[in-house]
This record gives sequence, structure tokens and C-alpha cells, in this order.
Amino acid sequence: MNYQMIGFVIGRILLVEAALMAVPALTAGIYGESLEPFLVPIAFLVLAGVLLGFRRPKSTALYARDGLAVVSLAWIVMSLFGAMPFVLSGDIPSYVDAIFETVSGFTTTGSTILTEVEHLTRGCLFWRSFTHWVGGMGVLVFVMAVLPMTDGHGMHLMRAEVPGPTVGKLVSRMSDTAKILYGIYLAMTVIEIVLLLAGGMSFFDACIHAFGTAGTGGFSSRNLSVGAYDSAYFDVVIGIFMLLFGVNFNLYYFLLIRRFGEVFRSEELKAYLLIVAASVTAITADIVHIYGSVGQSLRYAFFQVSSIITTTGYGTADFNTWPTLSKGILVTLMFVGACAGSTGGGIKVSRILILVKSSVADMRRMLHPAAVTTVRLEGKPVSEKTTRGAHVYLSVYVLLLAGSFLLLSLEGFDLVTTFTALAACFNNIGPGLEMVGPMGNFSAFSPFSKLLLSFDMLAGRLEIFPMLLLFAPSIWNRRGRIRRFRG
Amino acid sequence: MNYQMIGFVIGRILLVEAALMAVPALTAGIYGESLEPFLVPIAFLVLAGVLLGFRRPKSTALYARDGLAVVSLAWIVMSLFGAMPFVLSGDIPSYVDAIFETVSGFTTTGSTILTEVEHLTRGCLFWRSFTHWVGGMGVLVFVMAVLPMTDGHGMHLMRAEVPGPTVGKLVSRMSDTAKILYGIYLAMTVIEIVLLLAGGMSFFDACIHAFGTAGTGGFSSRNLSVGAYDSAYFDVVIGIFMLLFGVNFNLYYFLLIRRFGEVFRSEELKAYLLIVAASVTAITADIVHIYGSVGQSLRYAFFQVSSIITTTGYGTADFNTWPTLSKGILVTLMFVGACAGSTGGGIKVSRILILVKSSVADMRRMLHPAAVTTVRLEGKPVSEKTTRGAHVYLSVYVLLLAGSFLLLSLEGFDLVTTFTALAACFNNIGPGLEMVGPMGNFSAFSPFSKLLLSFDMLAGRLEIFPMLLLFAPSIWNRRGRIRRFRG
Repeated sequence: MNYQMIGFVIGRILLVEAALMAVPALTAGIYGESLEPFLVPIAFLVLAGVLLGFRRPKSTALYARDGLAVVSLAWIVMSLFGAMPFVLSGDIPSYVDAIFETVSGFTTTGSTILTEVEHLTRGCLFWRSFTHWVGGMGVLVFVMAVLPMTDGHGMHLMRAEVPGPTVGKLVSRMSDTAKILYGIYLAMTVIEIVLLLAGGMSFFDACIHAFGTAGTGGFSSRNLSVGAYDSAYFDVVIGIFMLLFGVNFNLYYFLLIRRFGEVFRSEELKAYLLIVAASVTAITADIVHIYGSVGQSLRYAFFQVSSIITTTGYGTADFNTWPTLSKGILVTLMFVGACAGSTGGGIKVSRILILVKSSVADMRRMLHPAAVTTVRLEGKPVSEKTTRGAHVYLSVYVLLLAGSFLLLSLEGFDLVTTFTALAACFNNIGPGLEMVGPMGNFSAFSPFSKLLLSFDMLAGRLEIFPMLLLFAPSIWNRRGRIRRFRG
Repeated sequence: MNYQMIGFVIGRILLVEAALMAVPALTAGIYGESLEPFLVPIAFLVLAGVLLGFRRPKSTALYARDGLAVVSLAWIVMSLFGAMPFVLSGDIPSYVDAIFETVSGFTTTGSTILTEVEHLTRGCLFWRSFTHWVGGMGVLVFVMAVLPMTDGHGMHLMRAEVPGPTVGKLVSRMSDTAKILYGIYLAMTVIEIVLLLAGGMSFFDACIHAFGTAGTGGFSSRNLSVGAYDSAYFDVVIGIFMLLFGVNFNLYYFLLIRRFGEVFRSEELKAYLLIVAASVTAITADIVHIYGSVGQSLRYAFFQVSSIITTTGYGTADFNTWPTLSKGILVTLMFVGACAGSTGGGIKVSRILILVKSSVADMRRMLHPAAVTTVRLEGKPVSEKTTRGAHVYLSVYVLLLAGSFLLLSLEGFDLVTTFTALAACFNNIGPGLEMVGPMGNFSAFSPFSKLLLSFDMLAGRLEIFPMLLLFAPSIWNRRGRIRRFRG
């Protein structure tokens, strides 16, 4: 392990976080609130960042395991610092609660322990949603975009932070790829803010909801979430933008450089839109007796499907009261998740496509042992390593889900609350059903469960392995260091 | 596909079923009940069996795909004939209900659509439980044990019917292996019957409960299941025998030939017993406030854990009223299942061990790309093909579970009922929670859902692939036939 370089990169990240925290500090200033809740953590961040990044490391080499360690440690440390403003402002007195809320923010989950958000200080409310925006595209991707770094090993960082079964560079330089991704991300966020302003939303609320949509997070400035506006216009704008942010960002780059064919041929995009269309249709039919008209039902069904499959978690209706089929579809979509390379969570559509295709190929091989079967996705053959990776991912995912489920059931809440709270956190969605439904929150959980769910949120956002590998002895002991020379 | 040989083997199986059905016919005779419900299907079975098996096929070769087709078709046809006595006796007037009950019997699930079993005719009650005993060890294994068959291709039949990630022959001849397995199975069943008789159970009831235990099925002759006796002796005897029938039968063979080392070194056995011990301890602590004493709680906890992990499904307490942790553990055990090569269902302990070990190995490879990592189980290296098979199995398992869950949620029952009804059928357990809890039953489901659940029970018992491959076009069309020469 290259501990010097890991410390150096984390130091850089803390400096970036200090800079990012200046934005909510400015907000607090504008609203005449105390600046202390932000200035104190900024001071700590700068101090820690300077100490860690003071000395340039002898070697800037980052191997795969270093990349994994940087990503998991960076996200944990960022969350620990990021929670401070909530405690210092008095908005969230308990530090464990503040950690849960901050992890929920950075991981773009959107689960909250707050029963009441409208009375939060403006600074903290802004920071809470801004963490969605920062976490959505990834902090390390941001660091790569804005700070000069050796290029050769950035790939390991990118691979560990960008979700999906495979990661490709758009352009030859990693830092340029990061810049392009953040450029698209920023532009789309600005367009959404403008559209929300056009509908009459205040600038503050427009920013909050655009951050929540862009990061597919789901924190709102209103207790009733997007439903508070009861506006078909906002439902449609936010509903469509959630879907857009759930698409692989590489496709937007292809649109920009006019390679339209790549977009229209994308199997993942087709599957994603097909799942959305089928789910919206089924739920509309299932809830039409509740809302009376097809139009109204379609509006709620579309918004909720878009919100859940992209793992955003905004709500316009209390789907906890919907019939079982609708709830069953939504719970299933929680696990499906959005496209790879988007800001959404879950298992990811492309990974599911790989699992289905390679399982079908294996079954075909049972019937015809001599047949040559190649799994293809997006027109390209999928390597054996990638299919194996997808299968192993599912196995680890299921095992971690089962383990967390048992630990969470110690709370003694009903099974649906227990299971959907976990599903909502692990897949970075936000609300679940029953006690943690759209009208509920996570405040009833014990500190132990809140930390467990925080771990699961981080595991979900970083696709499990970086978090699990923190438990590997070789990350921590000297043997790992020695092994570097053999690795 | 060798259709002639497939037909021939299925013909033989139908003749065996006719012979097996003579046992409940005899029972009906002893109790002075009408013999017609059994003689009519026996006549049909003999007719169909003779027609199918009339002409010896030109080639007796069975390829892997033929083995899969034989197994799935045989189990479906057997269930269709096996359901007839219930309809003819008037015990279960609806044929769909009778199919559900029969599939539940043969697959050793033990889910029932009956609200009241104590008033069934003795003949049908016996047949219902006898299907557990027949299905537990497998019909094709039975056919191999009793009928002369070409040896070379029996392996494909055995592999398709005996659960677990790998299947090994005990002795060089397949038919001898089958005889040894059935011998052990029969001996253990007889010992259990004797022990139940010693406790004062009637001979009829002792047979019923021994069949239900041996096949890890769970049908009882009493509405309150084993709880009806409220006897610590029966709880302990049945509890221990359920555990014993959940162990890989190969280990009993090793005991017989005095290779004790193989038994004591068995990792799967250790893991299985460890899971049982941990679950019993946790549940005992969780329910002690309900039953007052540790002894009583331990008794209920042990019986229920043994019943669920072995996928038997007998009940002595209404665990639907237990706290969430206990229910969470039981739901998790539903998926874990028993050991490979036992009569139990679920994912199987050894498959889970392979999944965990190979996932850990893959994660170690992320940290140390050059490290050589071999997955070992029971002291032997696990082949790449086997680990891949386990991962693909889990993927297909999860996909089928999700698809069935969506279809079943059309019923509109609550989510816990929907999910645990599916989990109970797919893992061949019997009872679930809420409406299908130990005191409930499956009668409220629509005919569509009953057939869906029957499919899932068969898929669970035959480990999915034989059932899914029935949908492969090449099983049915001429191309499949032509491909045989290339395969």
C-alpha cells in the first residue's frame, strides 16, 4: 500500500470539501444566519488537508487496492467532517444522527432522520442537498477534474467511484474525461434550475430540488417533498430530469459529439426505458381506482417509478397506501436501479442485463455443451472477467443484504419496515414502506442501526467492494506493505 | 434429443408410480374406504406406462439435456396423475387445488390448500404424506435403484434430481449408489417410526410424520401439526430427525464404511450445525419473555429452527407471533436451506459456502492481482466450473424469485404474505408468515397463483434449470433433434 499517496489524495479531497463548504457558508451569510457552523469545520478541513498533503509523496503510484482504500476512506472522512455543521448549528443535536444524514446526502440516498425539515437553518438545508450534488458524480471524479494529478493511476480511483460493471474513459486523458462528465452534469443541473424557476419555484428551492434530482438523492426543502407543490408542471419537470440523470452520462457525451448511433443502439437505455414504461403502465392501472382519473394516476405513477428506479426517492403521493402490486413493483425497482455510469444506485440495469444474458448462455451450454456462446452487450462481447464480476457482485450483494437484515431486525420493527429501510439505504433510494414510507423517517432507529445503515449506504454508493475491503487485514498491516513489491 | 428414450424412462416412472400408489390403496382397504380413487389412476398409470415403455428405444443414450428433460417432465406427469386420488375421493374437489397439494407433496414442500386435514380419508392422507417420502430422495433415483438401466447415462438423471452444487457417485455403479442411498433412507425412516411408536403415537400417525420428516416435507395428519401432541418427546425426536435428514446422505455412507474422518472434517456439516446452534440461541433469547422459561423457549426454538433450515415446515408454535428478530432469522434460514445431497431444499449450505469463499477469493484478487487463490471445500479444490455454476444458480434464483414475486403480488395480499408464501414454496418449506403462517394455508390464492407456486415448488426441488429449460425452443423443435448429432 502506498500510504503516503493515499494520505496525500485524501488531504486534497479534504481541501476540496473545505472549498465546497464555502457555498453553504455563503448561503448562511445571505440569510443572516451564524457562519460558525461552517467556518469551524472549514478550519478543521483546511488544517487536516494541509497536514496530509504537506509533503508530496515519493511515489505517486496508485495500485487497484490503493484506489479502493482511497475511495472508501475519503467518503468516510468526508462524511465525518460534513456532519459537523448540522451539530454546530443545533439543527441535528446528535452527532450519530448528523453522520446518518450526511452519509445519506453524499451517497445520494435521501433517507432522513428529520421529522421536520422546513425549520432547518437555510445554510444547513442548502448543505444537506448540496452533498447530493457533490456525491452524485463523485468526489474523486471532481478532484480529478479540478486538481492536477498523475494520470496513469487515476483509472483505479474512477473505477472505484463510478458505478457499473465496467468503466471506460471517454477521452484518452482521465482528467479530461472527468471534466467532460462534470461539465455535462453542471449544465443539466442549471437547465433544471431554470425550468423550475420558470414554473415559479423560488431560487433556493429550485437549487435544492435540482441538487436532489441531479444526484438522484431526494432530499427536499419541504416536509411533503415534491408533493408539497401539488403541481403537474414540477412533477413532469422533476420526473423527466430524474430519468435523465439515471442515464449513463457517456451517452450525453456521444450526443454532444454527434455519435447518435451509439445512443439509439444502447441496449441498457432501451431496457431502462422499457422497464419504466411497463412499470408506469401497470401501476397506473393498479391505482386508477384510488385517484379516479387515468391522467392523475399516470402522473403519480410516472413520478414515483422515475423516482424509485433512479433511486432518487422524491415523493408526490404516499405509495405506502397503494395496492400490493404497485408496492411490489416499486420494491423490485428499488433493486433494479438506474443505468451504469449515472448518478443512480441499485444493482444497475446493465449489470442485470449481463446477469440475464450470461445465465441464459450458461443454460444454453447445458443443452448444447459444444455450442459456442458469447455474451454481447451494446454490440460488444462481454469479457469473462466482467460477467464473473457481475455474478460475484450479486452474491456479495445478497450476502451483505442478508447480514444487514438480521442485524436490523434486532430493532423489533415490523418485517416490511425492516426490509424496505434496508433496501432503501443499501440501494441509495431514501424512503421505504410502513414506518420509513414517504411520510415517515428513520428517527426511530437506534444509533447502532443508524451506523449500520450508514455503512450500507456507503456500500451501496461505492458498489460494496471498497467498503468490504476495509476489513481486509492486508490493507492495515505491514504484510500488505511488503506485498506491494510482489503485487 | 432422444425422445424415444425419454418416453421410455417416463413410462418406467409411471409404472413405478402405479406400484407406489398401491400402498395408499392398501391403506384405504384397511380402513374400509373406497378403493376407486386409487385403482382408477393406477389403471391409467399402467396404461400410459406400458404404452410409453412398450418399445425399447433404439438408442439408450441420454445426454445432459435429455436428463434435464426427463426429470422435469417426469415430475410434472407424476404430479398430474398423483393428484387424481384427491379429486376422485372428493377430499379436494378442485383439480388445480389437488395439483398444488400433490406438487407440494412430491417436492417435499408441505404447503397446503386444506384448512382441515383430520377429516380426510385415511387413504388420501397416507398418499399425501407418502408423496413426501417418494419425492424426498427422488423418483429417478428410485427408478435407478429398482429397475435395470444402462449405467453410463444415469449420471445425468442423478445430477438433475439430487440437489446441490456437485453430485458424486459413492460407488462405481450408479444403480448401486442409488440402492445405498435408498437403503439408508429407508432404515432411518423405520428407526423414526419405531421411536414415534415408542412415544405412544399411533402407527398411522407415526408413518405420516416419519414420511414428512424423512422427505423434509412437513404434511401432518393433524391440523395443529406436531404441536397437536404438545409432547416434548415427539418434539425432540422429530426435531433431531429433521436435522438428520438435512445432512448430506453421503456422510451416512461414510459412517457405514467407517470413514469417520470424512464426516468429522465435513465443512458443510460444521457450517450447518453452527448455523443451527447460533439461530437456536438467538431465537431462544428472543422468545424467552413469551414462554417464561428458558427450557420451553429452547424447545420451541430448536424445533422451529430445525424445521425451517431443513425446509420441512412442521410447527409446534405459531412463530408468526414471535418478535421480528426471530421471524427475520427464520425467513433467512428459509433461503439457506439444508445440506446438498440431503432431502432438504433451499439454496443449500455448501452452495453458500462456495459463494462466500469464491467471493472472498475474488476480493483478495482485487487487493493482490498476482496472488494465486484457490477455493477449497471439504479439503478439495473447487473447480472454476462449480463456482461459476453456484454464482449463475444464485443469479437465476434471484431473477426467478423477483419475477414470481411480481406475478404473485397481483393477488393483492400484504407484502409479507406474498413474499413468504413464495419463499416457502420456492424453497420447499411449507408455511410462511401472516396469511400463510403456521396456522394459515394457501387456499385463498387464485388458481393462477396456485399453478405459479406449483411451478416454483418444482423449480425449487429440481434446482431450477430442468424447469426453465422446458422453455428452451431446442427442447421442442426439430432443430434440437438435429443438433444432437453435433452436440
